[in-house]
Amino acid sequence: MTQIYHPRQKQLQSLIEKLSIPQQAAIKWNLLDLALTHSTVSSIHNYEQLEFVGDAVVRLVAAELLFEKYSNYPVGEFAAIRSILVSDRSLAQIANKYGWSRYLLVSKSAAGDRAGEESRIADSFEAVLAALYLSTNSLELIRPWLDSHFEILIAEIRSDPARQNYKAALQEWTQGHYKTLPNYQVEETNKIHGDRGRFFAEVWFKGKKLGMGKGPSIKAAEQAAAKSALNQLKAKSFEQLDDLL
Amino acid sequence: MTQIYHPRQKQLQSLIEKLSIPQQAAIKWNLLDLALTHSTVSSIHNYEQLEFVGDAVVRLVAAELLFEKYSNYPVGEFAAIRSILVSDRSLAQIANKYGWSRYLLVSKSAAGDRAGEESRIADSFEAVLAALYLSTNSLELIRPWLDSHFEILIAEIRSDPARQNYKAALQEWTQGHYKTLPNYQVEETNKIHGDRGRFFAEVWFKGKKLGMGKGPSIKAAEQAAAKSALNQLKAKSFEQLDDLL
Repeated sequence: MTQIYHPRQKQLQSLIEKLSIPQQAAIKWNLLDLALTHSTVSSIHNYEQLEFVGDAVVRLVAAELLFEKYSNYPVGEFAAIRSILVSDRSLAQIANKYGWSRYLLVSKSAAGDRAGEESRIADSFEAVLAALYLSTNSLELIRPWLDSHFEILIAEIRSDPARQNYKAALQEWTQGHYKTLPNYQVEETNKIHGDRGRFFAEVWFKGKKLGMGKGPSIKAAEQAAAKSALNQLKAKSFEQLDDLL
Repeated sequence: MTQIYHPRQKQLQSLIEKLSIPQQAAIKWNLLDLALTHSTVSSIHNYEQLEFVGDAVVRLVAAELLFEKYSNYPVGEFAAIRSILVSDRSLAQIANKYGWSRYLLVSKSAAGDRAGEESRIADSFEAVLAALYLSTNSLELIRPWLDSHFEILIAEIRSDPARQNYKAALQEWTQGHYKTLPNYQVEETNKIHGDRGRFFAEVWFKGKKLGMGKGPSIKAAEQAAAKSALNQLKAKSFEQLDDLL
């Protein structure tokens, strides 16, 4: 078994055990400690740089999983699903299953900031992924436990369209491929509160109307318009899109 | 030496040689072939899914390099530099040093579309990175040749601020951390063409003015405002930013 010289070793070891990572794995414990230290505890020795690496690691895990096991999905759907998988909400949800706040060092003042908790947990989770990735220069300490969480989320996303944030997915897609954002135009067609057709939205991109939808609120109408745009985009190859846009 | 059964083997092998990758490396030649096939040649057997994986691979290479060799830079600068490294322009520039268009299969009609060439080259380059990554589940076939290109680019970016796209960097940063975009307000302060102070721009984010600048065009004034915002952001830790924003 690897000797560990770190003062937090018991705590860090307990997290590693929870993640079902073999204790004899060549873990860089100093990086793992950094990944679980918030900037209010140390302005230098904290997770910020690792979080930057972890952002790319988590995108790679999601992409590889989609590529390996869901290659029958259209590539437009890959982007929509990944944008949900790598969101703060999804990552914090996974982290909290392991009782993340017990491992994350935060100053008392920051701990009192409940509004920032989700992003702190998600950021530190990304940093831990970076620490594990950098320990072996591969995803071998990550995918054995993270894939199953992502697979559950993918099934939920596919079965419950309400969970999907179509606006975010459409934005991710247009940003990724054209570096610009879609525009929404919303009109109030009647003033009846709760009426499903109260608001009517169109989404425009590069001078073309991509989709439209209605809903009881501005947001719901925009989501419906984004959904119809994504359905239209998904049905086309990138080549056809380049002609369209 | 690995046996290669692929019909394009000579061409693919020549690219691998140019990249200084050992010929005996365990390369997945079928993926490399896919990565160099545009959707106009085959609507199914093309680089689109690999490009999706490659987008994460190239971000990881950039992040790891910055983390390992430039850890003295503030983390805000990491994001600004990475947004340039992973841009279509930078990736196509690197790919073209290897004569990429000689290796990329494209239909005649698409080949005539000069406007789309940069993004086709960059997308296929990302797909090749994915194919090399998936060959070994590590960056070992990539970093030995890609790091040096990125190091040259990083030096150029640092020494020539005009090369930097501050608006894109600021947008990348606000999107990454707050999922929203900054707003620019521009005013024409005089009508003298070419005057450096003709336009005055302010950039606002979450109700706070982050920076201001002037320039001879709207775009130049916005870039100057984004630059001043980034300088302000870089000087702060994320914790201080959360208080500010």
